[in-house]
Amino acid sequence: MTHVNTTAESIATATPTPVTVLGLGDMGRSLARAFLAAGHPTTVWNRSPEKGEDVVALGGVRAASAEEAVLASGLVVVCLVDYDASDAVLEPLAGALEGRVLVNLTSDTPARARQAAAWAEKHSLSYLDGAIMVPVDVVGSADALVFHAGDRAAFAAYEPVLKALGAPATYLGEDHGLSAAYDMAVLDFFYGAMGGLVHAFALARAEGIDGASLAPYLTTIANILPPIAAYTATDIDSRTYTGEGANLTMMAASVDHILHTAKDRGLDVSQLAGLKSVTDRAIARGHGPESWSSIVEVIAAGR
Amino acid sequence: MTHVNTTAESIATATPTPVTVLGLGDMGRSLARAFLAAGHPTTVWNRSPEKGEDVVALGGVRAASAEEAVLASGLVVVCLVDYDASDAVLEPLAGALEGRVLVNLTSDTPARARQAAAWAEKHSLSYLDGAIMVPVDVVGSADALVFHAGDRAAFAAYEPVLKALGAPATYLGEDHGLSAAYDMAVLDFFYGAMGGLVHAFALARAEGIDGASLAPYLTTIANILPPIAAYTATDIDSRTYTGEGANLTMMAASVDHILHTAKDRGLDVSQLAGLKSVTDRAIARGHGPESWSSIVEVIAAGR
Repeated sequence: MTHVNTTAESIATATPTPVTVLGLGDMGRSLARAFLAAGHPTTVWNRSPEKGEDVVALGGVRAASAEEAVLASGLVVVCLVDYDASDAVLEPLAGALEGRVLVNLTSDTPARARQAAAWAEKHSLSYLDGAIMVPVDVVGSADALVFHAGDRAAFAAYEPVLKALGAPATYLGEDHGLSAAYDMAVLDFFYGAMGGLVHAFALARAEGIDGASLAPYLTTIANILPPIAAYTATDIDSRTYTGEGANLTMMAASVDHILHTAKDRGLDVSQLAGLKSVTDRAIARGHGPESWSSIVEVIAAGR
Repeated sequence: MTHVNTTAESIATATPTPVTVLGLGDMGRSLARAFLAAGHPTTVWNRSPEKGEDVVALGGVRAASAEEAVLASGLVVVCLVDYDASDAVLEPLAGALEGRVLVNLTSDTPARARQAAAWAEKHSLSYLDGAIMVPVDVVGSADALVFHAGDRAAFAAYEPVLKALGAPATYLGEDHGLSAAYDMAVLDFFYGAMGGLVHAFALARAEGIDGASLAPYLTTIANILPPIAAYTATDIDSRTYTGEGANLTMMAASVDHILHTAKDRGLDVSQLAGLKSVTDRAIARGHGPESWSSIVEVIAAGR
């Protein structure tokens, strides 16, 4: 991803609209700066008031209390460390939030997002739950991916403003847990790859290959993953794992091969061994002649 | 990768050169077809002679014995199921191979490749050990990646012919174990990603998200992996894990988060738990404030 500023297009289409940001950690400040950069009058609040001087310097208005901050805008964005923190901040604000749109960009589980949505519903609040899929310094750029889920009308009303964080703003559906669920699933893939990535460098180093020499070939692999993701999705959605080319038995043998090579070099193989236990069980259950994707059924069945 | 035929360029630069292929499994036949397509007189042999009719139909000449096949060409390529098989075939051929170049494209471990190289050295044979990094149907296309390692002069002499398998032909160095080592390391990354990929779809399915909806966001992740591989290589080669942005503690918390969400949904979490055991130990050893790449030291230290 390149780090570019908010596109002229996304700024041009948004009428300056008052926004409030609750929580001025690294991400909260980044959100506030993005709203300010897009021309929206931005009110901010943080429990410890020494944070956010950079935002104030850019034109952000510091409110004396969370309630005062909420009352300043029709759109209230909250971004705290987790839902324990956001629940504590929001609980006394139910009255102040009435008639406004609350967007919670705090990162947590789908279950916590749905609990927060139930609280909002109890108080008849208009609620969107979101997830920021990019690092702090990418927020506000044209390619920053930010998920939103929940109140469809609220999203439609504030979409032009939310685009200040990343365009297009992505709406996933009415289930408030969807942003966190997509977040978790995407990161699940990311961390599998990130564990394998470092293990690959460790194995290469043990064989006398430096990282710079290996990296280009890892890029080759990264480039074949998108088409694999697409046909894996088709297999999984149709629950048919016929797969062309290599079958699970062949691929599991390859995993075993790598595992033993790494073990022989004295490397830790915890992640590979975990994966191998999945492929072993899948083969034991008859998935051997099927595609790699068939391991989804063993994963779904649990231990 | 797109599947295209050998480029006119690579065909045009190679003088027709006799080649022998020992072993006519799926991959061996694909190699023979690629040599024939590039205009090289190709002699083939397989232990059970009923295999390879397709290659003969394209102009391949079937030899009556492995020795006769070897004597037909200056370049002898062997591709069998593993090194037990290739050792058994090659052992009685040491005399016949004298003065020729042997390229072993059988897939196995770096250690087995180095053993085979020691055997070749004992018999003063010119030896290259290779690894085919693409599926059978991609061999012979312009983007087919084939690694070679070992005798540098032999590679230089036959590079134009070896390009028939995939151009450019890749020479990794004089250590005969390098092709298998690169192969293992690249696949190590691949399988980490492939395990995470299917787990991501399993988690999404458990949250009511179909594969087709999730896949585009997995592509977004795949696209950020090449730059991450590049800077991870720099960290690992310099053994400095200062890393900007998220540190290991933050990322490990995210792994834990996904692990618990998946567990709550009753999913198998073996691969994630294996990865978490690595991050736990890395944090216990003080790598928490460093970059994700620092887990390489824990992997290298073994269990």
